[in-house]
Amino acid sequence: MEDEQYLRRAIALSREHMEAGAGGPFGALVVSGGKILAEGWNEVTSALDPTAHAEVVAIRRACRAVGDFSLRGAVLYASCEPCPMCLAAAWWARVDAVVYAASREDAALAGFDDAELYREVQRPEGERKLPCRQLLRGEAVDVLESWLRKPDRIPY
Amino acid sequence: MEDEQYLRRAIALSREHMEAGAGGPFGALVVSGGKILAEGWNEVTSALDPTAHAEVVAIRRACRAVGDFSLRGAVLYASCEPCPMCLAAAWWARVDAVVYAASREDAALAGFDDAELYREVQRPEGERKLPCRQLLRGEAVDVLESWLRKPDRIPY
Repeated sequence: MEDEQYLRRAIALSREHMEAGAGGPFGALVVSGGKILAEGWNEVTSALDPTAHAEVVAIRRACRAVGDFSLRGAVLYASCEPCPMCLAAAWWARVDAVVYAASREDAALAGFDDAELYREVQRPEGERKLPCRQLLRGEAVDVLESWLRKPDRIPY
Repeated sequence: MEDEQYLRRAIALSREHMEAGAGGPFGALVVSGGKILAEGWNEVTSALDPTAHAEVVAIRRACRAVGDFSLRGAVLYASCEPCPMCLAAAWWARVDAVVYAASREDAALAGFDDAELYREVQRPEGERKLPCRQLLRGEAVDVLESWLRKPDRIPY
């Protein structure tokens, strides 16, 4: 019941800001302890930021609101299934759960790459549509090893 | 040769800002037409933003630099294989290619979730570690259909 109420708010945001020209038809919110920490909507084409998906925007705002890079204990509500970028953002933000409405296939029918992108991240590197290439591994591993030796490192 | 030069710069950024306490040991840059459009480094723990991975920061800055949500024609250089969030961000930014140094397994040895996160995005929803649940699909699909009827929509 509560889930539906928050999800309806995410869907309302998706319509409102799409109609206002902010970007694609997507809305999201982060809720913790019965309180909305932050709301977000797609701003890709208005903010000129391809990472400004509703979920990423809501997560960034929620972190600012609580002054922490962790949203442990919170739930992310999204009008559409998060794309791999947004699902991974939810993971890194340590939210407890994701509740969404439309699916990646619904997004595909509306012209968005979400379903294709789930296939892309599963492809072996040689079969990706976005060419990826590895070089100089040893030099970067040296830095990762320095990180492990850093006494005041903050894990996240 | 040129690839190695840019990638070395990404690795240098990863060390420099890790040592300065900005966040994890990761650096990235976006290059187009022989010019560095923007540099980024991990700022998760200093900016209190779980989405502030080096690649996302570099992509956002590069978009600001060119005033466009598309980085078509550009290459993303990253000191470590992009996690699913960053790989998807590169996809949405429409970069032509990604060149990276350390692997997701190297990142795992340094305590980061990248390799696990590639497994997570491939899991069927019921088997995810991050619980995901779908509700109210029809209400959100209505908004996606309104998007398709919006005459001045800007695809991305």
